Amino acid sequence: MKKISLLGATGSIGIQTLDVINSHPESFKLVAMSFGSNIKSAIDIIEKFKPEFVAVKDENTYNEIIHYSFSHNVQFGYGHEALIEAAVYDGVEVLVNAVVGSVGLVPTLKAIENKITIAIANKETLVTAGHLVTESANKHGVQLLPVDSEHSAIFQCLQGENTKNIERLIVTASGGSFRDKRREELQGVTVEQALNHPNWSMGAKITIDSATMMNKGLEIIEAHWLFNMPYDNIDVLLHKESIIHSLVEFTDRSIIAQLGTPDMRVPIQYALTYPDRYELKNGKRLELWELGKLHFEKADFTRYKCLQFAYNSGKIGGTMPTVLNAANEEAVAAFLKGQITFLEIEDWIERALEKHESISHPSLEQIQEVDRLTRNFVQTLIS
Amino acid sequence: MKKISLLGATGSIGIQTLDVINSHPESFKLVAMSFGSNIKSAIDIIEKFKPEFVAVKDENTYNEIIHYSFSHNVQFGYGHEALIEAAVYDGVEVLVNAVVGSVGLVPTLKAIENKITIAIANKETLVTAGHLVTESANKHGVQLLPVDSEHSAIFQCLQGENTKNIERLIVTASGGSFRDKRREELQGVTVEQALNHPNWSMGAKITIDSATMMNKGLEIIEAHWLFNMPYDNIDVLLHKESIIHSLVEFTDRSIIAQLGTPDMRVPIQYALTYPDRYELKNGKRLELWELGKLHFEKADFTRYKCLQFAYNSGKIGGTMPTVLNAANEEAVAAFLKGQITFLEIEDWIERALEKHESISHPSLEQIQEVDRLTRNFVQTLIS
Repeated sequence: MKKISLLGATGSIGIQTLDVINSHPESFKLVAMSFGSNIKSAIDIIEKFKPEFVAVKDENTYNEIIHYSFSHNVQFGYGHEALIEAAVYDGVEVLVNAVVGSVGLVPTLKAIENKITIAIANKETLVTAGHLVTESANKHGVQLLPVDSEHSAIFQCLQGENTKNIERLIVTASGGSFRDKRREELQGVTVEQALNHPNWSMGAKITIDSATMMNKGLEIIEAHWLFNMPYDNIDVLLHKESIIHSLVEFTDRSIIAQLGTPDMRVPIQYALTYPDRYELKNGKRLELWELGKLHFEKADFTRYKCLQFAYNSGKIGGTMPTVLNAANEEAVAAFLKGQITFLEIEDWIERALEKHESISHPSLEQIQEVDRLTRNFVQTLIS
Repeated sequence: MKKISLLGATGSIGIQTLDVINSHPESFKLVAMSFGSNIKSAIDIIEKFKPEFVAVKDENTYNEIIHYSFSHNVQFGYGHEALIEAAVYDGVEVLVNAVVGSVGLVPTLKAIENKITIAIANKETLVTAGHLVTESANKHGVQLLPVDSEHSAIFQCLQGENTKNIERLIVTASGGSFRDKRREELQGVTVEQALNHPNWSMGAKITIDSATMMNKGLEIIEAHWLFNMPYDNIDVLLHKESIIHSLVEFTDRSIIAQLGTPDMRVPIQYALTYPDRYELKNGKRLELWELGKLHFEKADFTRYKCLQFAYNSGKIGGTMPTVLNAANEEAVAAFLKGQITFLEIEDWIERALEKHESISHPSLEQIQEVDRLTRNFVQTLIS
């Protein structure tokens, strides 16, 4: 019985993680969780999974939920301290970090210090402070298990292989909502159009990130840290069907790939069962002959500027990826609120990156300061 | 330094094995080999690789080659006894069995008894006597390393995995020389047309087997034995580009695949370097975006009758696959000699199978007897 803490329980990854936990009740137990503002969904989850501790994002929601009478004994907390408390809650063996944004960083670091295995769906944590997270994980002998479908694919392809034999990682990209549009056609696109992802049903932020390809950019940086791979050995491959989730090329030119129907429960469950595999309840078998064809295209760094920003920031390193991520989070939030246009997301990120002087080997405090300053800067641009 | 014996040195797999040995002289040494009738090529190989022992197929060729003066000390033998001698030659660590046909069986069994690792490119050995080979390999703790691109692909996909989690093996098939022809169009096809394989340059027998899909049928039986997998859990997938060499589906619906440009040196080298990988000299990198598309189709058992014969024979088991293989070897030889038509290959195999009463758990002697009787029967049909 694996004891699990789930940060971001009411989000897309959170809900699917609960589905996996629910389908293998003999193997998994949810002991702690966090949620943001979706109190109705949270109450259902708490009633069903009976966690012992629940971290609520803000005080108002906390004050509301503590007056609800649950059928079992459950404690609540709120704010960032509660998020950390949920992450390192007594007996937790695996932390599924599925919050959105760099708020997931400190709870992850604390969990690592407590020797808790990390199933990481929160890519901003690795983007923003990859060196701190991986150094700490190495120091404490803690495994970082990827939950993103691409990184899980790479991780699966690397089982039984010697990492010295890796030639390159090939991260596939669907191209997002606007993949069939030329750059000039992106001028007047709406939030609704951007939220209409062709293959995956995901949260709003990641869906916009897919449309700008910043999602892929963040994944490149994530891959760099998770697999200790230089950026020149990480490629992006456009593959619109999202069937091949990623590939690894070895020195002998052999390529190993992981495939499947788009179903996030596969990588989530793999992170929870690793190194074993369990049956996926109601999982759809992939039959390639039903699809008939798979398509591949070269990634165009002019069409997708965010991809270029990510490679540049990653190679510069230090606090540059922190700026990339913070500027992106603020710009996407502003786009979702209708405050800026789709193409302005890129513009604001570019301006934040241009303005920043990278600090190498930054401390957590320096990262947090750069993160804060970047957000302020982007907000100034918007207002 | 791995000491290698190579049976079938002048054939297609043999030549490519020598290429791999030659590209890593610090790692591999050819100590024994066999060849059939290509004496010119054999002399070049012997001069270049300086094996200590050479098995020649027939006495005439033997009498010719022993009069040639080599620059090093080399011994010769001929016939089946010499083939066995080459297989178990003093110090041999890996036997690369790349002969064509069931003649490879006894040398393989002898090498296993001598605890020599088997790199198996000779699929007829496993088809004809899979139970004897795998039982003996298990008994002597000998590893059977596949060299066929499909089986090497599956073997690579299974690294680091628990075999209990395998749901099915998916063996890809190019469809061979006549994949774009309907069954009715196969009536008057010539040997030259049949020998024109779209993706791979291989020996004559295997190229005809690809055109009839018997090659895929033999591979299904080979996969059954190599991976201890029931026939109902082995599928064939038509994939005309031969880029995905095969796939493995696991219980969690995750599929792992091995890909690469069609280059037999990859699986050959992997068998020699396993579990490590070496750089492939002058290997061509696969770029999926250069191809643009990969195609997949369901395998049609009416169009490709040999595939159905293979599944049926495999499921019946016993000596039935021996008959399948022997009848096929004779029919293909007759087709190559212009004695029968392309579609008669299937007819003669079908008649041999219909006539045979399978013996379960046959001994080596029973297998050899069935093999002999089947060949006689098919030759009677032809003449």
